[in-house]
Amino acid sequence: MDMLTAKTIILAASALGAGLAMIAGLGPGIGEGYAAGKAVESVARQPEARGDIISTMVMGQAISESTGIYSLVIALILLYANPFLSKLG
Amino acid sequence: MDMLTAKTIILAASALGAGLAMIAGLGPGIGEGYAAGKAVESVARQPEARGDIISTMVMGQAISESTGIYSLVIALILLYANPFLSKLG
Amino acid sequence: MDMLTAKTIILAASALGAGLAMIAGLGPGIGEGYAAGKAVESVARQPEARGDIISTMVMGQAISESTGIYSLVIALILLYANPFLSKLG
Amino acid sequence: MDMLTAKTIILAASALGAGLAMIAGLGPGIGEGYAAGKAVESVARQPEARGDIISTMVMGQAISESTGIYSLVIALILLYANPFLSKLG
Amino acid sequence: MDMLTAKTIILAASALGAGLAMIAGLGPGIGEGYAAGKAVESVARQPEARGDIISTMVMGQAISESTGIYSLVIALILLYANPFLSKLG
Amino acid sequence: MDMLTAKTIILAASALGAGLAMIAGLGPGIGEGYAAGKAVESVARQPEARGDIISTMVMGQAISESTGIYSLVIALILLYANPFLSKLG
Amino acid sequence: MDMLTAKTIILAASALGAGLAMIAGLGPGIGEGYAAGKAVESVARQPEARGDIISTMVMGQAISESTGIYSLVIALILLYANPFLSKLG
Amino acid sequence: MDMLTAKTIILAASALGAGLAMIAGLGPGIGEGYAAGKAVESVARQPEARGDIISTMVMGQAISESTGIYSLVIALILLYANPFLSKLG
Amino acid sequence: MDMLTAKTIILAASALGAGLAMIAGLGPGIGEGYAAGKAVESVARQPEARGDIISTMVMGQAISESTGIYSLVIALILLYANPFLSKLG
Amino acid sequence: MDMLTAKTIILAASALGAGLAMIAGLGPGIGEGYAAGKAVESVARQPEARGDIISTMVMGQAISESTGIYSLVIALILLYANPFLSKLG
Amino acid sequence: MDMLTAKTIILAASALGAGLAMIAGLGPGIGEGYAAGKAVESVARQPEARGDIISTMVMGQAISESTGIYSLVIALILLYANPFLSKLG
Amino acid sequence: MDMLTAKTIILAASALGAGLAMIAGLGPGIGEGYAAGKAVESVARQPEARGDIISTMVMGQAISESTGIYSLVIALILLYANPFLSKLG
Amino acid sequence: MDMLTAKTIILAASALGAGLAMIAGLGPGIGEGYAAGKAVESVARQPEARGDIISTMVMGQAISESTGIYSLVIALILLYANPFLSKLG
Amino acid sequence: MDMLTAKTIILAASALGAGLAMIAGLGPGIGEGYAAGKAVESVARQPEARGDIISTMVMGQAISESTGIYSLVIALILLYANPFLSKLG
Repeated sequence: MDMLTAKTIILAASALGAGLAMIAGLGPGIGEGYAAGKAVESVARQPEARGDIISTMVMGQAISESTGIYSLVIALILLYANPFLSKLG
Repeated sequence: MDMLTAKTIILAASALGAGLAMIAGLGPGIGEGYAAGKAVESVARQPEARGDIISTMVMGQAISESTGIYSLVIALILLYANPFLSKLG
Repeated sequence: MDMLTAKTIILAASALGAGLAMIAGLGPGIGEGYAAGKAVESVARQPEARGDIISTMVMGQAISESTGIYSLVIALILLYANPFLSKLG
Repeated sequence: MDMLTAKTIILAASALGAGLAMIAGLGPGIGEGYAAGKAVESVARQPEARGDIISTMVMGQAISESTGIYSLVIALILLYANPFLSKLG
Repeated sequence: MDMLTAKTIILAASALGAGLAMIAGLGPGIGEGYAAGKAVESVARQPEARGDIISTMVMGQAISESTGIYSLVIALILLYANPFLSKLG
Repeated sequence: MDMLTAKTIILAASALGAGLAMIAGLGPGIGEGYAAGKAVESVARQPEARGDIISTMVMGQAISESTGIYSLVIALILLYANPFLSKLG
Repeated sequence: MDMLTAKTIILAASALGAGLAMIAGLGPGIGEGYAAGKAVESVARQPEARGDIISTMVMGQAISESTGIYSLVIALILLYANPFLSKLG
Repeated sequence: MDMLTAKTIILAASALGAGLAMIAGLGPGIGEGYAAGKAVESVARQPEARGDIISTMVMGQAISESTGIYSLVIALILLYANPFLSKLG
Repeated sequence: MDMLTAKTIILAASALGAGLAMIAGLGPGIGEGYAAGKAVESVARQPEARGDIISTMVMGQAISESTGIYSLVIALILLYANPFLSKLG
Repeated sequence: MDMLTAKTIILAASALGAGLAMIAGLGPGIGEGYAAGKAVESVARQPEARGDIISTMVMGQAISESTGIYSLVIALILLYANPFLSKLG
Repeated sequence: MDMLTAKTIILAASALGAGLAMIAGLGPGIGEGYAAGKAVESVARQPEARGDIISTMVMGQAISESTGIYSLVIALILLYANPFLSKLG
Repeated sequence: MDMLTAKTIILAASALGAGLAMIAGLGPGIGEGYAAGKAVESVARQPEARGDIISTMVMGQAISESTGIYSLVIALILLYANPFLSKLG
Repeated sequence: MDMLTAKTIILAASALGAGLAMIAGLGPGIGEGYAAGKAVESVARQPEARGDIISTMVMGQAISESTGIYSLVIALILLYANPFLSKLG
Repeated sequence: MDMLTAKTIILAASALGAGLAMIAGLGPGIGEGYAAGKAVESVARQPEARGDIISTMVMGQAISESTGIYSLVIALILLYANPFLSKLG
């Protein structure tokens, strides 16, 4: 196998792996939407606590977001800093 | 393997990977729709808090949207700035 | 591999990738339908707030729609402005 | 690969891609049915608000319909205005 | 590849694509059944509003039906007016 | 490829496509059963409205049935009036 | 391809297609069981309305059954009156 | 292809098709269990209506059973009265 | 193809088909467990109706069991009385 | 095909079929757990009915267990009393 | 086929079959967790019935565990007492 | 087939089988989390019963854990004490 | 087969098996999030029991975590202490 | 097989395995979003307990996050510290 073939197969697998990893993003999407709905409901009931509600929501969503960000990180590494290629050499 | 074959395989895998990544978009779609439904319900009950409700909804949805945007970003990179090709050279 | 074969494989993968990407559209469809149901319920209870309810629903649905639109964008790019082909040259 | 083979593979992939894209239609079907059920319930409770309820339902459903229409658009383009073929030439 | 082989592959893919597209029909089936159940419940409670309830149900179901009809349209086009064949010529 | 092979492949794909299309029938089955359950419940509570309840149920189920019928239609066309064969000639 | 091979492939695909089509039967099974459960509950509460309840249940289940019957019809046609074979001739 | 090979392929596909068809049996299993649970609950509340409850349950379950029986019928035909073989002759 | 090969392929497909058919058993498992739970709850509330409750539960579960038994029957036929082999002769 | 190859293929398919059949065991696992939960709840409320509750639970679970046992039986037959092998002779 | 190849194929299929069978373990995991949650809730409400509650929970869970144990048994047989090998001889 | 090839195929299948078996771990994860949530809720309501609640939770979770442990056991055997290899000799 | 090929196939299968095993992690993620939500709710209602609530939550989550840790352990063994390789020798 | 081919296959499998492992991230995303929603609701009701609520939420989410982090760890090891390659030598 020549070097070009090797790189091609690894990069094609990286593209598919990046696509698979991004699917995890549907979990935070559902969860954070639930949090947003609860925040909207709460703001309507206690408008005076609006600041507290929104800051809690944003903090909670930010942490929920993390697995989505992990997937993004893995995908970006696969795309831009693909560490596999340097291992072929 | 010649360079054209290599590029072809990588780009075909990129097209499939981009399609897989976009599937994550069904999560934010469900979650944000839940938030929208809660906002509609709340506006009907407290029309005087309409501004607060809508701004909370938009903020909550915007954050929920993020994993959908990550997928879009990965797909656009795969399409337009495909970093894999430069690694073949 | 000749240029025609290369283009064929990439375009066939693009057609399948576009189809996969569109599947994400089932998420916003469910979510926005929930919002529409809540709006209908609310209008019946507070007909006097009809304007507020509908404008909130439309705004909430428009944002929920976004991941569906991202998928449409990716599919249209794959179809009409397929950036992969220019990379073969 | 001759031109006929190329066209055949692309068009076959387009047919499968169009079928995959249409699957998204199950989301709006569920969501809009929920909205219709809520409208029926509301009309029975407030028959005097019938006009408002139905117009809200139709507007909400019309927007929920959009991702289904996007899929239809992509499928129709793949069928009738298949942009891939012109790229082979 | 001769013309007969080309047509065969495209038509076989069209048959599978049409079958895939029809699967979307399970969404409207669930959604409209929910609306029908709500209508039945409402008619029993307010028999005097029977006309309004049924006309609302039919209108709501008719719109929910649309993505099922889109799938039918795509399948019928693939079967009867298969636009792919004219592109081979 | 001879004509017999072509017909064989198309008809085999049609048989699989017809089977896939029929799967959509599980949606109306669930939805209409929900409507039937609601009708039974309502008849027990308001036996005097029995006529109205049953006619509403039948009408609602008949419309919900439609996507199941679309699938049946597509399957029957694939079986009996397979339009693909005439296109081979 | 000889005629025996052609028939074999078509009949094997028909057997698989019939099996796929029958899977739709799980939908009516769940839906009608829901209706039966509601009927049982109602009979216990209003034993005097037993006739009405059971006749409503049977009618509702009979209609819900229809997509299951469609699948049976398609499977039986594939098995006994396989229209594909006459098209080979 | 000789006759033995033809029979072998058809019978192997029939065995797989029969297995697929039987999967539909999970639907009636869930639905009838729901009905049984409701009957148990009702008998405990109105022991004097025990006869009515059980006869309603059995009737409702018997009808729900039908799609499971359809699957059994198709599987038994595929096993014992396989109509495909007579078509090879 | 010699007779041994034919038998081998059919028996291997029968083993897989029997395994697929048994999967249906998860439906009755869930449904009957629901019925058992309701019976336990009811016995605790009306210990004096214990006989009626348990006999109702057993009868309801026995009928729910039927699709599981159908699967068992098909699997046992495939294993012990495999009717396919006699058709090869 | 020699006898050893035939036995190998049948036994490998039997191993996979046994694995598939055991998957059905997740249904009784969920259902019986529901029954156990209800029994625990009931014992806490009516400790004096403990004997009745537990005997009802065990009876209900034992019947729910049956489809899991069917799967075990089929798997054990495939493993120990594999009837397929005697049919090769 | 030599004996080593035969053993290899059977043992590889056994490894995959054992893995498939263990998947059933997710059912008891969910069901017993539900029972545990109910026990915790009940102990908090009636601490005096703690002994009865825990013994009921353990008995209920032990029975629910059974399908998980069946899977374990099948997997262990496939691993340690693989009966297939003795059949090759 | 030489001994090295045989070992390779068996060990590769063992690695995949171990991965499949571990998937069962998602069931106990969901179930025990439910129990933990109930324990937290109960401790807040009856802090004086904290000891009883936690010991019940731990006992309930420990039993729920068992199918996850079975999977771990099977995976560890496949990895460390792979009994298949000794059978090749 | 040479030793390098053997190692390659085993290590590639180990990489896929490790990925499959990690999927189990979605179960504890959902379950522990439920426990966290209940803890948050309880702390808000009984802030004075904060210590008890959090220690209960952490203990419950720690146990729920276990199947996720098992998966991690299996994956790490596959990666770092791959016991398969020593068996090739 | 030469060393380059070996490395290529292992690295391609690692890329796919990393993508599979990241899918687990959808579980914590849903679970933590539930916790965030509960925190938002609680802050609105007891703004005075805001500190306690948020610290509980963060602690609960941090532990729920763990299986997502395990997946990230496995993926990063597969990418950067791929231990498989050193085993080839």
